Amino acid sequence: MDKTSLTDLPFDIDRLHAAYATGLSPAAVMAEVHARIAAAGDRAIFLHLRDPAATADEAASLLPFDPVAYPLWGIPFAVKDNIDVGDAPTTAACPDFAYLAQADAFVVARLRAAGAIWIGKTNLDQFATGLVGVRSPYGVPRNALDPAIVPGGSSSGSAVAVARGLVSFALGTDTAGSGRVPAALNNIVGLKPSLGALSATGVVPACRTLDTISIFGLTVADAWRAYRVACAPDADDPWSRPMPAPALSAPPPGQRIGVPDAASIEFFGDTAQAAAFGTARAMLQAMGATVVEVDFTPFYAVAQMLYDGAWVAERMAAVEPLFRARPGAFHPVTARIIGGADRLSAADAFRGIYRLAALRRQAVAAMAGLDLLAVPTIPTFYSLADLEADPIGPNSRLGTYTNFVNLLDMCGLAVPTGPRGDGRPGSITLLARPGEDARLAALGAVVQAQSGAALGATGWALPAAPAPAPAALPQEMELVLVGAHMSGLPLNSQITGLGGRFLRRTTTAPVYRLFRLPGSPPARPGLVRAETGAAIDVEVWALPMAQVGAFLAQIPSPLGLGRVDLTDGRSAVGFLAEALAVTGAEEITHHGGWRAYLAAQPA
Amino acid sequence: MDKTSLTDLPFDIDRLHAAYATGLSPAAVMAEVHARIAAAGDRAIFLHLRDPAATADEAASLLPFDPVAYPLWGIPFAVKDNIDVGDAPTTAACPDFAYLAQADAFVVARLRAAGAIWIGKTNLDQFATGLVGVRSPYGVPRNALDPAIVPGGSSSGSAVAVARGLVSFALGTDTAGSGRVPAALNNIVGLKPSLGALSATGVVPACRTLDTISIFGLTVADAWRAYRVACAPDADDPWSRPMPAPALSAPPPGQRIGVPDAASIEFFGDTAQAAAFGTARAMLQAMGATVVEVDFTPFYAVAQMLYDGAWVAERMAAVEPLFRARPGAFHPVTARIIGGADRLSAADAFRGIYRLAALRRQAVAAMAGLDLLAVPTIPTFYSLADLEADPIGPNSRLGTYTNFVNLLDMCGLAVPTGPRGDGRPGSITLLARPGEDARLAALGAVVQAQSGAALGATGWALPAAPAPAPAALPQEMELVLVGAHMSGLPLNSQITGLGGRFLRRTTTAPVYRLFRLPGSPPARPGLVRAETGAAIDVEVWALPMAQVGAFLAQIPSPLGLGRVDLTDGRSAVGFLAEALAVTGAEEITHHGGWRAYLAAQPA
Repeated sequence: MDKTSLTDLPFDIDRLHAAYATGLSPAAVMAEVHARIAAAGDRAIFLHLRDPAATADEAASLLPFDPVAYPLWGIPFAVKDNIDVGDAPTTAACPDFAYLAQADAFVVARLRAAGAIWIGKTNLDQFATGLVGVRSPYGVPRNALDPAIVPGGSSSGSAVAVARGLVSFALGTDTAGSGRVPAALNNIVGLKPSLGALSATGVVPACRTLDTISIFGLTVADAWRAYRVACAPDADDPWSRPMPAPALSAPPPGQRIGVPDAASIEFFGDTAQAAAFGTARAMLQAMGATVVEVDFTPFYAVAQMLYDGAWVAERMAAVEPLFRARPGAFHPVTARIIGGADRLSAADAFRGIYRLAALRRQAVAAMAGLDLLAVPTIPTFYSLADLEADPIGPNSRLGTYTNFVNLLDMCGLAVPTGPRGDGRPGSITLLARPGEDARLAALGAVVQAQSGAALGATGWALPAAPAPAPAALPQEMELVLVGAHMSGLPLNSQITGLGGRFLRRTTTAPVYRLFRLPGSPPARPGLVRAETGAAIDVEVWALPMAQVGAFLAQIPSPLGLGRVDLTDGRSAVGFLAEALAVTGAEEITHHGGWRAYLAAQPA
Repeated sequence: MDKTSLTDLPFDIDRLHAAYATGLSPAAVMAEVHARIAAAGDRAIFLHLRDPAATADEAASLLPFDPVAYPLWGIPFAVKDNIDVGDAPTTAACPDFAYLAQADAFVVARLRAAGAIWIGKTNLDQFATGLVGVRSPYGVPRNALDPAIVPGGSSSGSAVAVARGLVSFALGTDTAGSGRVPAALNNIVGLKPSLGALSATGVVPACRTLDTISIFGLTVADAWRAYRVACAPDADDPWSRPMPAPALSAPPPGQRIGVPDAASIEFFGDTAQAAAFGTARAMLQAMGATVVEVDFTPFYAVAQMLYDGAWVAERMAAVEPLFRARPGAFHPVTARIIGGADRLSAADAFRGIYRLAALRRQAVAAMAGLDLLAVPTIPTFYSLADLEADPIGPNSRLGTYTNFVNLLDMCGLAVPTGPRGDGRPGSITLLARPGEDARLAALGAVVQAQSGAALGATGWALPAAPAPAPAALPQEMELVLVGAHMSGLPLNSQITGLGGRFLRRTTTAPVYRLFRLPGSPPARPGLVRAETGAAIDVEVWALPMAQVGAFLAQIPSPLGLGRVDLTDGRSAVGFLAEALAVTGAEEITHHGGWRAYLAAQPA
């Protein structure tokens, strides 16, 4: 690969790995990374840039290219400067706080062990307090698309580095929205994992009960790939918890997606943003999702608590010795926010926790029956001038759709949805219950593909993704569903509630008869193998192996789980009915499946 | 039943229900309750006693005796006076705080709907702050066994009322140990359920994140019966969560039980208490348990945080308006404790939460590989005179083995273990992970039976318990085996290798036909439901729920798992065969089972 083509090489992982597979050297890529950083001409992106000789050495020392053993082989990444990299300074954008890190943060170590190569430490709103990216003594990284608007924060440098194609992905952190707001402002993907999925060992805390490392990528697939490597329990982090990180799969059909209703949606007068969200909403519907309007009042009430309630005291707890000893060490806006904690007693803290618990119940109720939520990532855009005029208000408004998420223990994924009418980047954030990160990634990958948006500010198109082969993972069982457990039908929540995920539609081998069982509701079919039968429409889902018992326990007579032969010659565990029970039952084999039978019934 | 025998009638639920079954009237029992209360001559037990005419009326209005539909039919119970009963005052032992409750607390309503009849509201350490029972302006209930020692608290009146046989069971609350310490001091059972199992709606908070209603009974079976009625999710309580409450079963064999090691166990010089715990420990070993010594340092470090750390601020949050307006309304010791919250900032509260999270990891590590813990419920006994000399120290020491439990989100059960050498009551507390209350009850019932202790201060012996039918535990599934998986047959290791355990032999309902399937080895039968069938010998095993999937994955066509009806009228998941597969197969129904068929084959 000659020098010219290297300059044009997109840095998404698929295309970098494709280039490596054909002989490109990782040292050449590292040199290109440094060349791009120099060409970018923005010294506020990185607070510490690794010596090019060190990246070259590390690239040269990689074992032979093996993207299975090393899924991030030769992939350059950046690290927000509130996350430790061994032997590099950590500043949290506060010079008086700075220290030389002794070791890699847990997540950084995992990424490097998978072959990724760190390039530098990136700028941020001081102590990750802010959503704007202007609260740093080290200057403001230029927004990758429009230097007049804020880059977004607090993970400003990481977002801009990805959006400009300087690295393949970058770590941020996210407490209030720092992993999502800068993604929207720079036209990239921001994955804010479930709390506890990514270890906080080696991360400077903002609000320890709410913090998580986040991942910026040019594509959903790239962010997800880094997430799968980074996600692992850490005994040294009290908030770490085991979380699923399966391979990217297709989204299940017929998902129910909540969006803010007309009375509660808020764009602060930005009609272009409202129109962009309407377009995204229509895209979700066109993909087969059911969009449900939800009153967002309880979510906003939760959001309000992050800075106005008890949690600002966590920021104080994180820095109190320095704050008392040298208040002048803090950015004036940051100092004002953190100092607000001094108004709050321990009893106030617990009252905040009580109020959150009550609001959380309301939010859970609002989400009942929904698979996920979709919100605008940001309600509108703010310029650097706006922030100079009012350093607090625009920051608060940028968090409209992000501040409640960690308080409610949800996971989130910000995805570009293509340019608005005025050319600014559109972005929605998908939100789901903890542990459902894979559900977000599955849908988000399709949204990004359908949006047709270029990647970040690079002009690169999304790589053509090979359709992921939908199959069960080692800890899952494939389950053939025939009736009311299928997607969108009344008992589907029994499957999804146990962590089941949709794999594919198919049909049985042509050896079954289908009956409508008497009794119920809900109405249920019975599948019985017969001498002469037909191919019956079924869905194949993956259910965590450990949950099969809980699922089986809910199945009433005359149904059970046995081996069902499929049209592709394979067999899988699936629903069968006892033959005696279908004696006299209505035969519906000729409909070809339960869904077709239901559709043929009078309303 | 004549008056003399009624005076002697033990009030445990089994014997009360047996008496009801032979015609005793609940109104007569209510009259006896009031007669016993009068005879007890301790006006400090009840803060509000219900009008005897009201209890008589309620007793008379019960539907006909039906202990299945109404498991607490005609059972008298008392309620700690920080729990609401509609139209009765709630004082929390603070006259200036008192109000007339508008409605029954959620749990009280459930108990009454199951036929239980409330008798009165009981004394407590003010605002449930204390473990001694002497911090009440309404006097001190006399300890049921020895008036010189403290009754224990905070649920003092409830414990004494049960120990003296005035009521069958009583509600307490438990934050630091208020549902366990008084049980030990009065020789009764104290069930401290998993947090969130029993709704807090209608309960005056002490520490809202740590509070639970608790249940005192004369027997484990009685406390468990009340628990099963009371346990249900409550949408109005943000801390309510669904919890299993299965029927009492036998404890699984070979449990691993942690106890404090020699270096960390603490009796404050009480050698009789040390000896009693040694006896209890030997009893557990004799029952087949493996006793493992554990360093309790992390548990004590957690316990220390309850009053010395952030959580005292929860007590302030619960009463702050009254505390500011009328500090003189508080018991002086209570006021001193609650006033300690004023030293704590919101940042301190979060620092406490962080420290607890770290210590919780240590405690989890200490419990790795253990099924439960067993500790002395109290380290020693204190007299009223001890408390007059030092109102704080003895109280703290009484919480040695209780204060850490709710902070660690564990459930607990205090069980009498028989008199010590000096006649004082022995008691151990079994502790387990949240949701494992049934594990505690199963073991606790056996401990109580083997201890031979009389009930409370009544002199009544434990009723002879019917041996609980061997049944699956909450985390297990009952599985009906028909063929080669049964005990001693070729595929049995598939079951035992996944942690399965034998429960019982039985037969199916007489509605099945049995066939020898072609193919194999090993030879396998197929069970198929038929119009005309027979009862087939089967074995019921318990398989860990999480392993059912792994087991199902090994089952080849034409076999599967469905619902099998058993001879006792119940059904369970078990092996069935597809009907088509037995066409032409050898029918062996007449053998009555697979084992009999095998025995009849030529060698």
